[in-house]
This record gives sequence, structure tokens and C-alpha cells, in this order.
Amino acid sequence: MKAVRLHEYHQQPVVEEVPEPVVQGPFDVVVKIGGAGVCRTDLHIIEGQWADKSGVKLPYTIGHENAGWVHEVGSAVSNVEVGDTVILHPTTTCGLCHACRAGNDMHCVESRFPGIDSDGGMAEYLLTSARSCIKLAPDTRPEDVAALADAGITAYHAVRKAVPLLYPGTVCVVNGAGGLGHIGIQSLRALTATTVVVVDRNAEALDLAAKLGADHTVLADGKQVEAVLDLTGGNGAEVVLDFVAEQGAQQDAFAMTRPDGSYFVIGYGGTLSIPTIDLISTERNVVGNLVGTYNDLVELMVLAQSGRVTLHTKKYPLDAALDALADLDAGRVRGRAILTP
Amino acid sequence: MKAVRLHEYHQQPVVEEVPEPVVQGPFDVVVKIGGAGVCRTDLHIIEGQWADKSGVKLPYTIGHENAGWVHEVGSAVSNVEVGDTVILHPTTTCGLCHACRAGNDMHCVESRFPGIDSDGGMAEYLLTSARSCIKLAPDTRPEDVAALADAGITAYHAVRKAVPLLYPGTVCVVNGAGGLGHIGIQSLRALTATTVVVVDRNAEALDLAAKLGADHTVLADGKQVEAVLDLTGGNGAEVVLDFVAEQGAQQDAFAMTRPDGSYFVIGYGGTLSIPTIDLISTERNVVGNLVGTYNDLVELMVLAQSGRVTLHTKKYPLDAALDALADLDAGRVRGRAILTP
Amino acid sequence: MKAVRLHEYHQQPVVEEVPEPVVQGPFDVVVKIGGAGVCRTDLHIIEGQWADKSGVKLPYTIGHENAGWVHEVGSAVSNVEVGDTVILHPTTTCGLCHACRAGNDMHCVESRFPGIDSDGGMAEYLLTSARSCIKLAPDTRPEDVAALADAGITAYHAVRKAVPLLYPGTVCVVNGAGGLGHIGIQSLRALTATTVVVVDRNAEALDLAAKLGADHTVLADGKQVEAVLDLTGGNGAEVVLDFVAEQGAQQDAFAMTRPDGSYFVIGYGGTLSIPTIDLISTERNVVGNLVGTYNDLVELMVLAQSGRVTLHTKKYPLDAALDALADLDAGRVRGRAILTP
Amino acid sequence: MKAVRLHEYHQQPVVEEVPEPVVQGPFDVVVKIGGAGVCRTDLHIIEGQWADKSGVKLPYTIGHENAGWVHEVGSAVSNVEVGDTVILHPTTTCGLCHACRAGNDMHCVESRFPGIDSDGGMAEYLLTSARSCIKLAPDTRPEDVAALADAGITAYHAVRKAVPLLYPGTVCVVNGAGGLGHIGIQSLRALTATTVVVVDRNAEALDLAAKLGADHTVLADGKQVEAVLDLTGGNGAEVVLDFVAEQGAQQDAFAMTRPDGSYFVIGYGGTLSIPTIDLISTERNVVGNLVGTYNDLVELMVLAQSGRVTLHTKKYPLDAALDALADLDAGRVRGRAILTP
Repeated sequence: MKAVRLHEYHQQPVVEEVPEPVVQGPFDVVVKIGGAGVCRTDLHIIEGQWADKSGVKLPYTIGHENAGWVHEVGSAVSNVEVGDTVILHPTTTCGLCHACRAGNDMHCVESRFPGIDSDGGMAEYLLTSARSCIKLAPDTRPEDVAALADAGITAYHAVRKAVPLLYPGTVCVVNGAGGLGHIGIQSLRALTATTVVVVDRNAEALDLAAKLGADHTVLADGKQVEAVLDLTGGNGAEVVLDFVAEQGAQQDAFAMTRPDGSYFVIGYGGTLSIPTIDLISTERNVVGNLVGTYNDLVELMVLAQSGRVTLHTKKYPLDAALDALADLDAGRVRGRAILTP
Repeated sequence: MKAVRLHEYHQQPVVEEVPEPVVQGPFDVVVKIGGAGVCRTDLHIIEGQWADKSGVKLPYTIGHENAGWVHEVGSAVSNVEVGDTVILHPTTTCGLCHACRAGNDMHCVESRFPGIDSDGGMAEYLLTSARSCIKLAPDTRPEDVAALADAGITAYHAVRKAVPLLYPGTVCVVNGAGGLGHIGIQSLRALTATTVVVVDRNAEALDLAAKLGADHTVLADGKQVEAVLDLTGGNGAEVVLDFVAEQGAQQDAFAMTRPDGSYFVIGYGGTLSIPTIDLISTERNVVGNLVGTYNDLVELMVLAQSGRVTLHTKKYPLDAALDALADLDAGRVRGRAILTP
Repeated sequence: MKAVRLHEYHQQPVVEEVPEPVVQGPFDVVVKIGGAGVCRTDLHIIEGQWADKSGVKLPYTIGHENAGWVHEVGSAVSNVEVGDTVILHPTTTCGLCHACRAGNDMHCVESRFPGIDSDGGMAEYLLTSARSCIKLAPDTRPEDVAALADAGITAYHAVRKAVPLLYPGTVCVVNGAGGLGHIGIQSLRALTATTVVVVDRNAEALDLAAKLGADHTVLADGKQVEAVLDLTGGNGAEVVLDFVAEQGAQQDAFAMTRPDGSYFVIGYGGTLSIPTIDLISTERNVVGNLVGTYNDLVELMVLAQSGRVTLHTKKYPLDAALDALADLDAGRVRGRAILTP
Repeated sequence: MKAVRLHEYHQQPVVEEVPEPVVQGPFDVVVKIGGAGVCRTDLHIIEGQWADKSGVKLPYTIGHENAGWVHEVGSAVSNVEVGDTVILHPTTTCGLCHACRAGNDMHCVESRFPGIDSDGGMAEYLLTSARSCIKLAPDTRPEDVAALADAGITAYHAVRKAVPLLYPGTVCVVNGAGGLGHIGIQSLRALTATTVVVVDRNAEALDLAAKLGADHTVLADGKQVEAVLDLTGGNGAEVVLDFVAEQGAQQDAFAMTRPDGSYFVIGYGGTLSIPTIDLISTERNVVGNLVGTYNDLVELMVLAQSGRVTLHTKKYPLDAALDALADLDAGRVRGRAILTP
């Protein structure tokens, strides 16, 4: 089959022929890929930023945001059958550790992350596990939903954790209205009646945010902290969801958070520095966020299939994977780039 | 009456005669002080660290940790009577704002903090409000419990927030076993079955910690992070309560926190710096902590009156306030210094 | 002033002249009534059903759902001024007890309920307390919002408690789409993405429910339990909000609740009988619901002022109070009857 | 092997030879039984009370409270090895459904309950699943802990759910200090500082309760509701844990619950009848309770292995199973009867 393989860091991956994966263990599932998202993390992988963290051996196949159809199942698989349309939770999990049993499976102690630390889904077929498969309505087109498998679940997971803090009368800042942020805005609209304030450097992104339900938009022109304080009576927002968290945005986003409020870090790249007296005198929280649980993705698919969350995507054939990566790198992709068979 | 008055920053306060406070509004209460705690924050006030934050006009009376007997009440006071033994919540609150009504009164928008931003309790009498008074068993000696009014409530509040995370099988690190920490250890023992690991630079403090119920003690000799990781299978603790949070302790304490864990900041003075990738890849939280609610103090008094939380104190007459401050500054106080009438 | 006074149980109240109330204590507030809701509970009061529970001394003024303008304030009132437009939390509370301080003020130990156990708002003026006043935008018409003060807050409070159970993919049954139910449906729509199934005996009520956002409607024709089970794969709903809870509806509603689900009792009148083996073998909960907190009403006013919750009302002049009561009794009121000055 | 088999309802089971179970699926585990608890539910099974609910086909082997050593494992089992000492979660679960993934595995949609609906553990060997095994310290004697597998987990699960309601200053009533109740008391002591009031008909049981940490004991002599109200200032308890819930105890226990309080049903047999006006006017909850999760049992084993929860047991050889059942039926067992190999 064809696959997008990384042979060396700092060099472009190659679309080449490799053997198809086959089922080995009783819970293995092989999925024929119908849509594979192209993510900024793929660029970071190529740049070698994940080399030490993932420890993956090159060459390998990238692609960690996948949906398709079940192609082959292991002997003990009971939850999906060959032919089922599925979206894949991004990690494979054991189902046996404390985290898996506590509804917290992204902290599974035996977790693997295909596309990051093992062969991923920019290929015709992907080997995964029964526990990662979510069965969809048969007529769902995998290419239309694949972006929910990683960008979507991450944004939704953060929103889900923030919901109890966002009763009517509160303000939630969404910092960054890109791939994740625009799903975050829609998730907030579906699950809360909070006032949504969206901050972005890009005026087009703010237009889209307003269409998706933002109550206020703020251009990040250097005065965005002031603007948010003005909108909140000088106090700041009860919750700030930071989908950027680099290049100083993390400090601004924390400054937009009101006393007794919570600053959710979802993007990454920068370093957050806070005098501890500022944490204690205002009793603010900093909340880390990592992908989401299998059940989070199930819930998000409910929102997607009822039309409450929609995606903007741009499709490329698998053979044109390098074009998709180049377009993403150059800022030429609106929404999410998706590879199709 | 006599009062400990600060006339100028960077100079010692003076014990001098001032007029007794009198009730003015319908909810005012004047309390005859039976015990006033001496706190490191008093030293910081004298050093001018709080000058800008409090905006208090000098001269004024310090002392923010108080208990005594009701001396005079306003016309509408219904919850206490003259002669009642009381401990005082450290802030006065309005009872009308969202925070007061949500069980979150230390975030009251009209809050005052006697001893910090207005006349405090190192005096014979203190003016406070009905809402700040907690009535105690008549035979309680104010000097025995005063330290719970600020040191106690702060430690208890942090523990109370951590309890849902501390189910059996978890580990809680207490960083710093001084005035607040030793109440934190006892509160953990009263409210959880977690494994308590106490870290301190002082071997005597660790001995006390072990007597109070610590399961493990770790000397902070530079290898304390390693020691905590060793005790936790290399993972770190589910919760770290940091009563120090200065001079680098904040970085070590964060490093002791396991993935999906929470780092509670209670002490202050240092600056916490974390790459955002470390927050998101492990999904850790940083939790700010500020005093506690009136109900927190009520609960802590239940623990104190049933003997589950006990205090080590050293008494000084009000006239010897400067000796108490000097002893505290020089590290000569074990437990808490308390001024008595 | 004119007031609707009950002189004897089982007899109609009388509209008659009584002295205007005046401020007595420092926290008292007299409100000029702009809208007073007419509630089924008023009929029950006349029928004597509340005689023992309220212990009120006849004659007295009924009316427990009120909004208007501040007319006079006590010496210590700081949160409202004469002329402010206000809606009134239905109970007066002390602000000092554990419940008031825990964000649970409808369990205040000193609570009074004007219109039930003391003079109410079917009059030109009402005596209440500063703690009960919620200040509204000045141009709000009290008659348009008064029904939120009791019917609204009660429905909203129950929904608010149910929100954490109603993640996407769940089903919530609303049993009874009358005065409270139609606010419940809108509150669910504002705060959740759950599937809302509305059950009622009245086809018109179901039409309104569908317009307000119900996903499915079920006519209560004797087969409603079966119909709900069919809609939920035979399992029942995660949450059932029962605004009826009499005449057998309570048993049906419990039967619509799935294993691990929660049955919320909001209406009253019937007796619920459950073999304890049915509670334990399915681990279902029965949740009592009582009015709501002051903060609940503040939140609901946010939903109302942003148009997410709207009311259907029918206005009557205060002089025509008996007509309004008669119309309500005869089922001639759609939405809520409101008395106006 | 020998097994205790039920051939017909209303007749005594028979100890007889049957084939040993063998591993069939990749996740199967066969456990050599070291301790099997004898439970009142076994008597109810023999009496036919569970015939319809379980639908089990006779003859079969009873025994649903088991611990032992791993004897054989399926090809895909990774969490235990032959020879490991294990205690068994009472149900086998799929690990794939929403409940299993939400930390709620006792609501697994594919659950089986060995000893109730399939062959159980009153035998030399038991067939179970990898997901049900909790590995213990190798020197643990299965006969010493087996009773935690069902009686223990059920009591602990209820306490665990009640903990957030039981802050210092609250009162928790334990109704019934038998097998489950005495574990409940110890769990409350380990996890809370609430005031524990134990109610029982048996003075000896109350003596044991006092030794285990009850603050007050109340003899159930017909005046127990009054006695509990007296102990709680006329209000009742914040939480009532009812381990009886039959023969009228359920009505008394509900009457002991204060406004805004929660009545936990754990025992069964009676019918609970409550006018809905009593639920809404006091906003009380009725909480059903069912076994517990795998993680609950893991936590309880932590308490047991640290000595915070201890069991009183009486051992019988497997051959004497009928004696154990007869002793239990006749009230001759203190604590729990355990069958040993």
C-alpha cells in the first residue's frame, strides 16, 4: 500500500509502497483510511521536535487524525465488524489500568499514539485496537469527520472541563480561532450560555468566529488584554481557553483571567511565568489539557452528527500529501487539510 | 487602649495608646481580643511589601489573626451577643455579592482585611462585622485557637479543595511543615486516607510531621525531587501542597507532581516558570489558594474542638509584641507566636 | 393600598384596602409591585392545603411571585436604591447561617416566604429585605418577568442541578409542559445539548414544547412509559424532570428513568412508592427540588434578558385578581397569569 | 473438582464433583479459590427470590464473593500471571461500553455476575475474566479478604459517594451494623471527620460499632427516629446510610434525614413510600447503591492492607458449606462466614 513515510528529520517525508498491516493480537483492528487530517504537529515532527519525546524509530508513517472503514478484526473483537464506518480515538489504550477504568483513558499507562510513536494513518491502511474504534452511521464520509479525531477532541475536552465554571453571566475568552479554536467556539455554544469573547490576530478568523456564535471579537493587535478587561468590567474572564500559548500569548491570556478564574492551556510552545503571589492573592488556576477521552470523542460525534459542530476542510489525495503539508506550512489552508484515498 | 501601631515602613511598630473602637453601623461588632497571632506577613508588612497592594494609610494597627470575646454589638446583630467567645474570619464581607452568595466569600467584592488594609487585632479591642464572628464553646480560650483564624484556615482551605483528588492509594506531598504545613498534615489525616509525604529543610519539623501522622518524611537537602519520585514509582504525587513556593521550592514542587496531578500553591515569594508543553503533555494543574471561607473556618473549629487538629503556640503579652516579632524573624518561634491581653 | 387578602380557608380572597407597609429594620425594602404572578399554589392555599405547614395567621395578603420598583429602603441597604427596577427572590434569608454561606440560601434557617407565611405581593406594595432584591435593567417591565420569580427559578434550579448528568448523547424527559415545564425546556436548550423528550396530556402544550426546542414529544395517553422506552432503546432516560408528580405520574416518570439515572421531583401531590430492590438493583436516584437560590434567579435573568428564555403571560389588573384565580382554576390561562397595578 | 451446586429452588445445594473450568477466550482467567464468602443473598437465591431476575439455568455453582490464586490465563491476559494472589471484582465487564469507559463499570451493558447468573466461587476453581482480577501482595491470605469482594465493596461504594456531603460538623447515620455496616463505619472513619451515629437492634452489634469508631450508638427499640432527631438538634442527619431498608426500616431511615440531606439505600426488601410534597418541600434525595466499581475495590484493598478496615470472619472448609449456610440463616455467624479450600 501507499504511505507517507518520514525517513529522516528535517527532510520531507516520502509517499512510497509498504506492506499492508495485518491483525496480530485478538483485539487488533485494521482500518482502511477514508480521511487523515494534516496537523501542525506533523510539521513539528518533521522538524524533529518530537524525536526525543516519541522515541519512534525512522522510517515510519505519520498521521494521527484518522477515520475510515473496518477492514480486518482480531479474534476477540466484539464492538465493530468488517465494513463498519469508524472514527479512531487517537491513542490505543489498555482498558485495565486505573486511568482507563476511571474514565480518564488518555492517561493510560500503556498508551500508544499511532502517527507519533508508531505507524500512523497517512496510508491506505492503519493498524489500531478495538478500544479505539467508534462506530458511526454507515453513510458518514470519513473525510468529513476525520479532523474531529484529534483537533476536535482536544478542543472539546477542554470545553467539557470548563463547562461547570461557565454558568450564565460568566465570560469565556477563546484565544485563537484556528483549527481547534473554531471547534471550541461551537462546543461552547452547544454546552453553555456563557458570553464568548474570541481573540485572534487574523480578522478573517474573527469573522468566522462571529458566524459560529462568538458574542464579541477582539483583534490581537497588542491591546487585546485591555480590550478583554474593558469587556469584563475590569475583572477579566472566568475562563480563558488558550489555543495559542506561545510567543507571549500565554502571559496575555493569563492576564485576561479574573480572580477565582481558570486559565486553560491547550496550545503550546511558550513558557508561562507567574509570581506565586499573583496565583495566591487572586486564587487563579492554570489547567493543563491533553487530547481527550474516548467518551469525549463519542460526545463530540453526537454534536457533529446533529449539526451543532461543523468543520471547514480542504481535501487532498493521499498522493498529494506533500502539497498539503506545504500549504499548511505556508498558511494556505483554511480550516483543516484532509488526505483522502 | 493599647495597640501595636505601624507608623512608617521599615521601622518597628510601636505599642501605644489609641481610642477604643466603637460600633457605628447596625452590623458592627467590637471584640475584646483574647489572642492575636503573629505571622510572617506582619514582618512583610513592616518591610513595606504590602504598601501598594493594601493601600493602607499609616499609622495603623497590625494583627490579622484574632479571637476574643464580643464586647459591643450593632443594632441589627443577631448571631452573637455581648460576652460570647468568638474566633474571627480574617476578612469582613458584604453577604450580598455573587461570591458571598456562592459560598466563596473570600472573593467578596467589598471585602476588607483588618490588620492588612485597616486597623487589626494586635490591640485590646477590634472593630469587625457580625458576618465575621464564629461563636465558640464559652470555655474556649481565645489564645489557644487564634492561630486557626489565618494560618489554620489557609491550610485547611487548600486541603479541603484537594480532598476529592486524594482517594486511597494516592500520594500527597506537603512541602513545608511549618505553621501552615503542620495544620495541613493534620487536616489531611482527618479528611483522607492518602499517603502523606512531608518535605522540609528542618529535621525537627520532620520529626513533628511524623508525630502528626506523616507516612514518609523527606529532608530537603537538594535531592528531594528524586526522593519523592522514588517514593512514587517514578511518577510523582497526585497532589503537592506547597506551603513554601519561593526560592526555587516552587519549581521542585511542580516537578514532584505526577501527570494528571495538581500542584497547589499556598506559600508565595518565588516565580513559577513552566514551558506550556509540560503543562499540556502531562495535563497537570496549578491551583492558587487564598485564605478560606467562613464555612471553612467553622469546619476547622469542629476539627480543633474534637482534638483532630492541635496547635503549638508560644504566648507573649501584648506589651511584648516587638519581642514576638523579633523572635519570629530570628527563627526562635516553634509553632505560632500569640499575643495575649 | 389595595391588597388581595385571604380571610378564611375555602372562601375566595377579597380585594380590599390595607395600610401600606413601611420599612422597620435597617435591611428592609418596600417594593412597589409591577407584576405579581398567579400560581396554582395560590389555589392550594385557598383550599387550606398549606394551613398547617405555613402556620400563617389570617387574614393575610397572598402572592409569592413578584417584581416591581424599589419604593423605600432601610438605613443600611447598599445594593438597591429607590426607583430601581427589581425582581424578588421568593424567600427572605438571613445571610448568616451555614446554608446562606454555602450558596444554598433556600435552606436558610431563618427563611420567610412572603405570600405563603406572611403578607405577599398581590398588593400595591410589598415589604421584603435587601437580600431578596435583584436589580434589573431600568427599562425592564416587571409584569414581563415576574413569573420568573417562582415558576422560573424552580424550573431553572432543577435543570441546573441536572446539567452535569446531561452530556451529549443523553436523553432528558420533561414530564409536564405547563408553566414550569416550558421554562425547563428552554433552560435545557440553553445549557445542554441533550435530547429533550416532552411528555404531556395536552396536544397544544406539546406543540408549544416543539417550538421551544423539544426533540420529541409524547402524548400522555396511557402508553407514555412505553413510548419513552421505545425512544431510548428500551433503557429509559438519564434524567426525568417531573413537573407533575401527582395522580400516578410520579410512578410513570420513575419508570421512564434508566439504570444509573436520576428522577427529579419538582411537581407534587402524589405519593411515590418504590420497592428498595428496584432502587439498588438499578442504582437510580430520586432528587427533591425546592425553589432555587438567589444566584439561580440571577442566572435565569441573564437567560431572560438575552432572549434565551421567554414567557407566555396573560395580564389582569390587580382589581381583577379573582378573575385570574378563577381562570387558572378553570384551565383558561395559557402560560402564566400576571396581576398588574 | 468439588463445588456447591444448587439443583432446585427451595432445596439445599449439594457439594459434588464437577469438571474444572478451563480458559476459553483470550481474556479468560481461572482462579483457584482461597476464600469464598457466604452471603445472605445466597439464602435468597436458594429461596428462589432471584430466579426471574438472574434467569440462571439450574444446576449451577453459587458463591459471588471470591479471592484466590491465578491458575490459568488466556492468551491475551497481561495484568496477572499464574500464581498471583488476587481478589475478584464480583462482576465481569466488557471494558468497551460507555459505563466501563466512564469509571462506572458496575453498569456495564455486558456484565455477568458469577455466583448469581453463572457458575460462582463456592468451588475449587472459578472461571472469570482478566478485567475482574486485582493483584494483591503475595502473602495475602485470600480467606482473610474475600468478604471485601462483595460486602466490602458495596459498603465502601456507598460511603465513597457520600464523602463530599460529609464535611466536619455533619452527622452520618449508619442504619444496621452487620456485615456491610461494620465496613461502612470503618470506611467513614478512614475518609471523613463526620459524626457517626450507628443504629441497630442488636446491643452487641452496637458495642462493636463503638469499638470501630462510632461517635454515638442508638438501639433500634422503636424510638430510634426520635433518638436521632434528638442527637441532631431536631433536624436529622445530612446522610443516612441504610444497610437494612426492609421491614419498615426504610421509612424510619428516611425520617432521620434532614432537609437538603440524602438517604442512601443499600439494603433491600421493603418498599419506600414518600409523598412527593415531602421530597420537594425539604429537597431531600434518595440515592440507590449497587456493588461498586473495580477502582472502588482497589481503594478498599488499600484501606484493608494498611489496617484501616478489618474484617471479622468465621472459616469453614468447602465441604462444610451447608453448615455455614445454616449458621448464617440461624444468626449464628458473627461477621462473615468464609469457605476455605
